[in-house]
Amino acid sequence: PDLAAFESLVRGHAPKFFYGIPNSQNPSGRTYSEGKRRAVAEILEGTDTVFYEDDAFGELFFDGKPRPPVKRHLPKQTVISGSFSKIVAPGMRIGWIYAPAPVLRQFNVAKQAADLHSNFLCQVILHRYLATHDLDAHVARVSAVYGRHCRLMCDLLDDLMPPGTTHTNPEGGMFMTAALPDGVSSMEVFREGVHEGVAVLPGVPFYVDGGGEDTIRLNFSAAGEEEIAEGMHRLARVVRKLA
Amino acid sequence: PDLAAFESLVRGHAPKFFYGIPNSQNPSGRTYSEGKRRAVAEILEGTDTVFYEDDAFGELFFDGKPRPPVKRHLPKQTVISGSFSKIVAPGMRIGWIYAPAPVLRQFNVAKQAADLHSNFLCQVILHRYLATHDLDAHVARVSAVYGRHCRLMCDLLDDLMPPGTTHTNPEGGMFMTAALPDGVSSMEVFREGVHEGVAVLPGVPFYVDGGGEDTIRLNFSAAGEEEIAEGMHRLARVVRKLA
Repeated sequence: PDLAAFESLVRGHAPKFFYGIPNSQNPSGRTYSEGKRRAVAEILEGTDTVFYEDDAFGELFFDGKPRPPVKRHLPKQTVISGSFSKIVAPGMRIGWIYAPAPVLRQFNVAKQAADLHSNFLCQVILHRYLATHDLDAHVARVSAVYGRHCRLMCDLLDDLMPPGTTHTNPEGGMFMTAALPDGVSSMEVFREGVHEGVAVLPGVPFYVDGGGEDTIRLNFSAAGEEEIAEGMHRLARVVRKLA
Repeated sequence: PDLAAFESLVRGHAPKFFYGIPNSQNPSGRTYSEGKRRAVAEILEGTDTVFYEDDAFGELFFDGKPRPPVKRHLPKQTVISGSFSKIVAPGMRIGWIYAPAPVLRQFNVAKQAADLHSNFLCQVILHRYLATHDLDAHVARVSAVYGRHCRLMCDLLDDLMPPGTTHTNPEGGMFMTAALPDGVSSMEVFREGVHEGVAVLPGVPFYVDGGGEDTIRLNFSAAGEEEIAEGMHRLARVVRKLA
């Protein structure tokens, strides 16, 4: 985040709640630096704001080194949650939460009112998987593959897209954001892309009050390297046509 | 529901939403008569109120005959939902919803924002179970057992409890409500019951604005007939002590 703007919002509005994704943010793939982590914690320390640290992507760093969570700098005010969706199987819909005891008690009541409890059978299956498999080795394999995919996609964006295209350089996760040349609309790229058989997500739905018209989110986790190469060639054709 | 009070609430407040359980309501086990179903539909017809018909227990009638849903009398304004929790396995957390198309579109967006989607693995397991097993035969077996349990529990309430105790007479479901003799507190019965190894749920949490201090919810689905008999003897001792 823009630290000056963030500090002024926290001081001016005393929000109850700040939601952030410090690791490989969706949609940009951006990661807070260690300095930003400390600064965010310092701004929030002692306020009534709870920091909700969404860490769905925290294990998927291409260099294999998880970053220390913001919670480490702000233990009493931070709720951190993660998911087995990105590292084991998305269809199980099982995640975890780590929060100060009073928050956790309230959370349990709210969750019970919302859904009684999480799917029990898949919790047992997941527990068995975790007890009998080396999850760290699996995560390391997956992260290495995603890292190769990400580098390939970045290189192809640099090589194939018309001048004025920029992109983030994720250190982990599954997504990156590309900014299109002046005057190219992400919604048009989305619509034309679908006709060419390449799917991108316009940035617009990621902004609550406007923005993102010139950005697209690209996913590098699911497709293989040949598909990524073919997709980037198709996407470059679409953007060149509209530029 | 009290039809006059219900009509006056609907006319006076034009609620967006009315939530009801016409079949074997939790906690009372009460079922709307066919006349009440028609009357509720007539009161709501043409208003802006959506009737949310929670039908979690609709298959579990002891006589094996599901009642026609209120939705049949009010098809355009009724959302009806059911659950596999009461007839297949609660731990799967899988249910269904049947709603007018515009409601369903909104519901799908809201559900996707809330939880992305339901557990996929257990949907596949459930689909397989439904395709290869006779669910109706299973439901008939379960309903017959619950019916026997319910009759046993009613008989024991009549035989063992002190004068002034009354109870509902469910036609289906898993629950009944008993009203305690004057001056006996359901919270005290709950606390004393736990010491005697018998668990009942006080009626209090089922009332949003007071009430239920003299009622307890009894569950007849999980325990076997011997356990029910033992439990009712213990409960009667507790209530006699407090009466």
